[in-house]
Amino acid sequence: MAVIVAVDTFDVRFPTSRELDGSDAMNPDPDYSAAYVVLRTDEGPDGHGFTFTIGRGNDICRVAIEALAPFVVGVDPDVLDLGAFARSLTHDSQLRWLGPEKGVVHLAAAALINAMWDLVAKRAGRPVWRYLADLTPEQIVDLVDWRYLTDALTPQEALRILRDAEPGRAGRIATLQARGYPAYTTSPGWLGYDDEKLARLAKQAVADGFTQIKLKVGADLSDDVHRFRIAREAVGPGIRIAVDANQRWDVGVAVEWMTALAPYDPWWIEEPTSPDDVLAHAAIRAALATAAPEGRPIRVATGEHAQNRIVFKQLLQAGAVDFVQIDACRVGGVNENVAILLLAAKYGVPVCPHAGGVGLCELVQHLSMFDFVAVSGTTENRVLEFVDHLHEHFLAPAIVRNGHYVAPTQPGFSAEMSHDSIATYSYPDGPAWASSTSIPPGGCESESTLVV
Amino acid sequence: MAVIVAVDTFDVRFPTSRELDGSDAMNPDPDYSAAYVVLRTDEGPDGHGFTFTIGRGNDICRVAIEALAPFVVGVDPDVLDLGAFARSLTHDSQLRWLGPEKGVVHLAAAALINAMWDLVAKRAGRPVWRYLADLTPEQIVDLVDWRYLTDALTPQEALRILRDAEPGRAGRIATLQARGYPAYTTSPGWLGYDDEKLARLAKQAVADGFTQIKLKVGADLSDDVHRFRIAREAVGPGIRIAVDANQRWDVGVAVEWMTALAPYDPWWIEEPTSPDDVLAHAAIRAALATAAPEGRPIRVATGEHAQNRIVFKQLLQAGAVDFVQIDACRVGGVNENVAILLLAAKYGVPVCPHAGGVGLCELVQHLSMFDFVAVSGTTENRVLEFVDHLHEHFLAPAIVRNGHYVAPTQPGFSAEMSHDSIATYSYPDGPAWASSTSIPPGGCESESTLVV
Repeated sequence: MAVIVAVDTFDVRFPTSRELDGSDAMNPDPDYSAAYVVLRTDEGPDGHGFTFTIGRGNDICRVAIEALAPFVVGVDPDVLDLGAFARSLTHDSQLRWLGPEKGVVHLAAAALINAMWDLVAKRAGRPVWRYLADLTPEQIVDLVDWRYLTDALTPQEALRILRDAEPGRAGRIATLQARGYPAYTTSPGWLGYDDEKLARLAKQAVADGFTQIKLKVGADLSDDVHRFRIAREAVGPGIRIAVDANQRWDVGVAVEWMTALAPYDPWWIEEPTSPDDVLAHAAIRAALATAAPEGRPIRVATGEHAQNRIVFKQLLQAGAVDFVQIDACRVGGVNENVAILLLAAKYGVPVCPHAGGVGLCELVQHLSMFDFVAVSGTTENRVLEFVDHLHEHFLAPAIVRNGHYVAPTQPGFSAEMSHDSIATYSYPDGPAWASSTSIPPGGCESESTLVV
Repeated sequence: MAVIVAVDTFDVRFPTSRELDGSDAMNPDPDYSAAYVVLRTDEGPDGHGFTFTIGRGNDICRVAIEALAPFVVGVDPDVLDLGAFARSLTHDSQLRWLGPEKGVVHLAAAALINAMWDLVAKRAGRPVWRYLADLTPEQIVDLVDWRYLTDALTPQEALRILRDAEPGRAGRIATLQARGYPAYTTSPGWLGYDDEKLARLAKQAVADGFTQIKLKVGADLSDDVHRFRIAREAVGPGIRIAVDANQRWDVGVAVEWMTALAPYDPWWIEEPTSPDDVLAHAAIRAALATAAPEGRPIRVATGEHAQNRIVFKQLLQAGAVDFVQIDACRVGGVNENVAILLLAAKYGVPVCPHAGGVGLCELVQHLSMFDFVAVSGTTENRVLEFVDHLHEHFLAPAIVRNGHYVAPTQPGFSAEMSHDSIATYSYPDGPAWASSTSIPPGGCESESTLVV
C-alpha cells in the first residue's frame, strides 16, 4: 500500500503573449499557464496533473485545487475506486454550489483527478491510454458519473458499446503502436501571424504529413477571406482546412461569415458562438448544411469550453455538432471524458480533441487512443489537434511523426513537467517573470484590444 | 466627482448547518455565506455587494473578487457607463477562459457589479429598483451585453418592450408603494424539519398572508408524499404549493416522482434536474403537461443555478420552463439580470426570483420591482421567494407584510451588512467560528451524507 501525504500546487505561466503564439479572435494575448499539482506519496512515484489557463486566474484555480486537497490527502492509490474518487471531488455539496460542475472548481477537480490517474497508471507501470484500454467494460462504466445522462445513454447501453468493441482491442493496440493516431495542426493559423509566415507554415504542415490544418478566424471578415485564400493556395485542394472562431459570433453573423468563406471549402467551423449555446450551434449547423462547394456541408465542431458531460449530451441530442472536441482539463478529468466518449459513440459523432494549450497534447492523446481501442473502434474522420510549442517542458513530451501522434510508452499521463520549468516559470517569482512587470488586466471590451 | 480608492473583501459565513435551516436534497448542510466586497470611495458612501455561497469555496470567490479588483479601483462612479463597466469585468480575455461567464469568476463579477449599483444608487439618493425604473428605454438597453442574444432578442425588440411599458410606469410605482410585491415563502419546507414544525409553519405562512408556499423534495419519495399531504392538509386547497428538487433527478425519475406527487396538486416543480440541461427541462415539462388533477399541468421552474443569459435564452427558446427564476448574484449582477428580464418578457414567461440565501431577498426585490414597473408591467403569476432568516444582519433588511415585499425606500441595493455581523461571522477568525473546528469537507457522494 501507499498513501498520498501532501498536495503541492504551483502557478506556472509561460509568457506566450510576447510572441502572439495562441492569439485568436477572443484571446488576443494569452499567457499559456498551468495550475499545477503534485500528489506526493510516501513511497514510489508522485502523481502530476494540472489544469490549463491562459494567464490571469491561474492563481484562482490553484486556490480551488487547495480547497479540494482534503479529498485527496490520505488516499491509498492502490485500492482506490477511481469512479467514486472523481465523484467525491465533484459532489461536495458546499463546493458544488459554485458550479455545479463548471468553471474554476471543475477545472481544479480536473487537475486533481488527472493527477490521480497519472499516479495510478505510473504505479501500474503503464501509460494511461493503455491502462484504460485494459479495463473491462464493467470497470469502464463504473468510472462514469451517470447522474443526468440516462435520458441519452444508460450504463447498459454503454456496456453494449464497450463489449462490441472488445474483440478488436488487441488489433487496434497494434495499429496504434505501428502507426500512431492521426493529428492535425493549428500551428499555421494564429491570427497574429503575417501572410508569409502563414503560407510557409501551411506548406510545412503538408510536408510534415498532416492532412488537415486549422486557421483562426473571426476578427475581420476580409482579412479572414484573404488568409483563407493564402492557406488554400499553399496546401492545395486535397488538404482539409478547418476554421475556428473562438466563440466570436452570434448566430446570424456566424452564418454570414461562413457563407463568405464557403468558396474556399472549410472543413469545419469550430466554436462559432457561445460554448453554452446548444440551440445556436444546432441553428448554425442547419443553416450551413449545404453551404460548401457542390452542396456539401460546412461542419460544426465545439467542445473545448463545453463545461461538462451535460452540455455534450445536449449537443448530441440536438444534432448540433458534427465533431465533439473534448478537452482533457476542462471537464472533470479522465472520468468525465470517458462519459463523453461513450455519449459520442452512442450518437455516432467523431471525437476530435482540443489540444495546443500547454500540456493538453500530452494529456489528450491518451483519451483519443483509448477511444480508438475500446470505445469507437475507428479513426475515421478523427484527428487530434497538435500545436508544436511548449512540449520541451515535459519529461515525456507528445511526439508527432508523419502527421500522427506516437503512442506513449512511458508509465503515467505524460503530465509531468520538469522541475526546472516549474521553477523558471513560476508566477510571479520565477526568473521568467521576476524581471518583467506583472501581467496587467486586459480591461475593457475585447473588440478594442484585439491584437490581430 | 468621486473615485473608488480600494476594494475590501470579507469571507462571511453563518453557521446555518447547525440548525438545518436551508437543508435540501442536494445541500444537506449549508453554511449560508457571503463573499462580501466594499468599494471604498474617497468621499461619501461606499458600495457594498456580495455573492452568495453555502460555505466551503466562499474563500475562492473572495480571491476571484480580488482578481477583478483592478477593473474597479480608480473608477469614478458619477460618470460611469454601467453597461461598459459590467462588460469590462466579464470580457477580460484571460479571466474569461475560466468560464466563460460561469462559475466562480462570474459569481465574483456579480459581487462587484452589484456593489457598483449599490454605490451609484446611493449617490443618486434612490433605491436601485427606483433608479432602474427611472432610466429611459435606451439607457436600459445599453446596460445589456447583447453578445449571444440576438437570435432570440434584438436591442430593437427590447426597446419596443420597454417603450410599451413606459406609459404605465408611474401608476405601477404607486401600486408598489401602496401594496408591495407579492411573495411566497419556503420557510416551512426545508427537509430537516419534522412533521409538526412543517404543519405549524405552513399554517403560519397562510396566516401571514402568503398564497404560495414551497416544499423541498427529492430525497425520499414516500417521505415527500407524506410531507406534501401534511402541508396540503395544513393550508387547504386554495394555497399554491410549489416543490423544489434542487437538481436531484434524471428525466425519467423526475417524471415518476412528480407523477406520484401530482394528486396533491403541486403548483410547480423547481430544479427537477441539472441546471445546465435545457433539453431535459423541456422533456420533463412536456411529460407533466397534464399530470395534475383535472388535466392541469405541473409547471416547471428553474434558474437559480442557471449560469448566464445564454442558458436562460435557451430555456425560453426551447419552451422548457413556465417560470424563470433569476438569482441576483449567480449571473453577472444587475446588468445580466436586466437581459434575462427582457428575454422573459419577449417570451411571455413570468419571472419568479430565487431568494432565501443570505442577502438574496434584499437584492432581488429590486429586480422584481423594476420588472413590474418598466418591463413586464404585471405581477400576474409572479411571486418573489421569501425566507425569514438572516435579515437582521443588514442595515436595510427586506420587509414582508401581508405576503408582500415592502418597496425599499433607502438609497442603494439593500446590500449593506452591519459591521458587527461582518466581524462576528468572518471566517475562520470571527467569534462565531473561532471557538469551533473548521468546516470539514463533506466528502463522498451526496446520497450517503444526506441529513433529512
